Amino acid sequence: MNFLNEIAEKHPNAISFASGRPAEQFFDLKNSGEHISRFIQYFSKHSRLGIDAAFNRLAQYGRTNGIINSLIARQVANDEKINCTENQVIVTAGCQEAMDLCLTTLCSECNDVVLARTPTYIGITGVADLNGIPLIPFQCNKPEEFLTALQAAVVSSEKCGQRPRALYLIPDFDNPTGTSLPLETRKEIIEFCAHRGIVILEDNPYGLFRFEETAIPTMFALDHHGCVIYLGTYSKTICPALRIGYAILPECLFGEKEKTASLMEQISQAKSFGTVNTSQFAQAIVGGVLLKEEFSLERITARATQFYRTNRDALIAALEKEFKHSESDVCWNVPAGGFFLTVSVPFSFGHQEADICARDYEVLVMPLAFFALNDVEHKEVRLAFSNSSPELISEGISRFGRFVRDRRSALT
Amino acid sequence: MNFLNEIAEKHPNAISFASGRPAEQFFDLKNSGEHISRFIQYFSKHSRLGIDAAFNRLAQYGRTNGIINSLIARQVANDEKINCTENQVIVTAGCQEAMDLCLTTLCSECNDVVLARTPTYIGITGVADLNGIPLIPFQCNKPEEFLTALQAAVVSSEKCGQRPRALYLIPDFDNPTGTSLPLETRKEIIEFCAHRGIVILEDNPYGLFRFEETAIPTMFALDHHGCVIYLGTYSKTICPALRIGYAILPECLFGEKEKTASLMEQISQAKSFGTVNTSQFAQAIVGGVLLKEEFSLERITARATQFYRTNRDALIAALEKEFKHSESDVCWNVPAGGFFLTVSVPFSFGHQEADICARDYEVLVMPLAFFALNDVEHKEVRLAFSNSSPELISEGISRFGRFVRDRRSALT
Repeated sequence: MNFLNEIAEKHPNAISFASGRPAEQFFDLKNSGEHISRFIQYFSKHSRLGIDAAFNRLAQYGRTNGIINSLIARQVANDEKINCTENQVIVTAGCQEAMDLCLTTLCSECNDVVLARTPTYIGITGVADLNGIPLIPFQCNKPEEFLTALQAAVVSSEKCGQRPRALYLIPDFDNPTGTSLPLETRKEIIEFCAHRGIVILEDNPYGLFRFEETAIPTMFALDHHGCVIYLGTYSKTICPALRIGYAILPECLFGEKEKTASLMEQISQAKSFGTVNTSQFAQAIVGGVLLKEEFSLERITARATQFYRTNRDALIAALEKEFKHSESDVCWNVPAGGFFLTVSVPFSFGHQEADICARDYEVLVMPLAFFALNDVEHKEVRLAFSNSSPELISEGISRFGRFVRDRRSALT
Repeated sequence: MNFLNEIAEKHPNAISFASGRPAEQFFDLKNSGEHISRFIQYFSKHSRLGIDAAFNRLAQYGRTNGIINSLIARQVANDEKINCTENQVIVTAGCQEAMDLCLTTLCSECNDVVLARTPTYIGITGVADLNGIPLIPFQCNKPEEFLTALQAAVVSSEKCGQRPRALYLIPDFDNPTGTSLPLETRKEIIEFCAHRGIVILEDNPYGLFRFEETAIPTMFALDHHGCVIYLGTYSKTICPALRIGYAILPECLFGEKEKTASLMEQISQAKSFGTVNTSQFAQAIVGGVLLKEEFSLERITARATQFYRTNRDALIAALEKEFKHSESDVCWNVPAGGFFLTVSVPFSFGHQEADICARDYEVLVMPLAFFALNDVEHKEVRLAFSNSSPELISEGISRFGRFVRDRRSALT
């Protein structure tokens, strides 16, 4: 992301569709003292300590796997229909740590590899690269092609002597594409991975920001084989500054309780040598919020969801207005939730184009090529609408439209 | 540490010399709201944002390297006579993350190794093991032997085709031994490592808890070659629950500013894929404390230091009383600060002995063998006095004394 930060700094007046940050006006850190007090009451009662002793316990080093695990289990049961016990949950320093721990633990042998659709979220690419874990990409433009593409990647990877151990995906409102996997595709992927002994890392940061009525069940909820690890975060719902995420392991990994216990032990040990334990102070704030909200984040995400939906609608309207004149070579998807959509243009879009957009048109967009795991040409850009406004979106798309038209005429 | 936790759980009435936790009665998390407000004022002024905007900025994702770096630089200047700029500092999720990032970044090639005296702190052993980085041990019983032992380890390691890249040590009040390196030894190690291109990872969690008048300068302060990285933490001084640590790189790594910039860039990138950034909320609390204390922790560590000194004195007195009758086969060191000392007994002390102590004598001690990097027999135990009281210490040593005498008579 450094390239992006650099061009953002060079062009401070550019309108940004680049940053996928949550909208900070819905965060409420000012009441953190109240949340901590509420959690301390609860913690004191459950650990049979007086209030002062509970405070002292909280201030200390603590359990590697976390102290709000049972509260998280109740929240995901309500909001995501995920059934789990607190022992299946490990609290982490943001979801990125959960991703890091799960991937490095699962892929510990030198021929272990992880699979991901290209383009994909750079957080998983970074973990794989840093730890020397090969990331095997597969490409599919439609959900119906997902399984075939995945199967082909697994087969060719195994032919090379590699062992596919994990599949990373964001089934709901994917970063960077904004697309979601249909129910049938989810079920097919689960059956295939269960059969092949591949663990699915289901990353779901955006699932609660849904604009349409019907939620598709999470893959964790659909899984009856014990092959899905669910990765969650409070960075988009409560706030990023707390750095609280988590992983939820299946009750019986590939049908065996002992396998879950063994994997959790390995993940926990890796965490103990990575960050020791997750800030109990930050956990207490999340715990206090969950207690106040009676274990559902729906109420506190409702306003933000409305905000994101308004921005998405403004973005779609602006795109329709800007590219209405028979410009069928510019198209986009309409995401049912989340922070992003993608626009495809009739020319290759990379570093240079992003730079020209920023410098000459004062609009920042993210080439999908930045998220690609292979060298295939990309004509798409990711537009984030999560930290913007209808006015900025309208003006930003007008600038982007000028760039697209200028570039198109230069090409013809 | 799982073995220890298990026997501690099995024997809840045992008096513990095992846990090296700081004394929690000196932590003051209840005023965190006040600390955050103070930091927000400062942050608002320095970032030229209004108070609400500063709060929103704080709640967001933020700079990977941290936001309190200049405050930390001022504190270590006052308390440790360490001169650095904020650009040399990276804030981490506890010092363990700093250790992990530095070691994995420095030892990125497959023949890179790290050196450590045995026994050593298990945090570094864990990072090395998890990342497949060979840890080359050297043994020395006296500071005068340190350099010779280190040199021998480097030579024999290089003969095997390995490249020693880093030396880990705790020069002040070492965990587990409680010993400190004399000034001359520090200087010799620096000269040797600078000459050999070995980076010294100076871990200093206990330095501010000094019982004697004169502090020995940190190795970072003594270094004129740019070969020392300083690792610090606020876990012992402010509280562990915030998980705030840091690394300070030399201004010019081995004399070159570009080398520092390159190493910092690599560490920062690794952090961005490990924990993204350190909780800005926790950073704000540390920042607020540093602002209140005018960039010195001396005032807030004074009471804790007095407490630890009283406990150390009680422990020494109890040992003298317990082992006074011509028992010259039991001896101990008198640490000039910190949380630990070691006692050597006239027989091998391992898992089994620790277990018997806990079960039959209701006293928990840590065999030094637990910290060993080789299979050499160990007759020493580590006694932590940081989270205890003179009464418990007196009774605990009386129990330990009975075990030692019983075991001695059984052996003769």
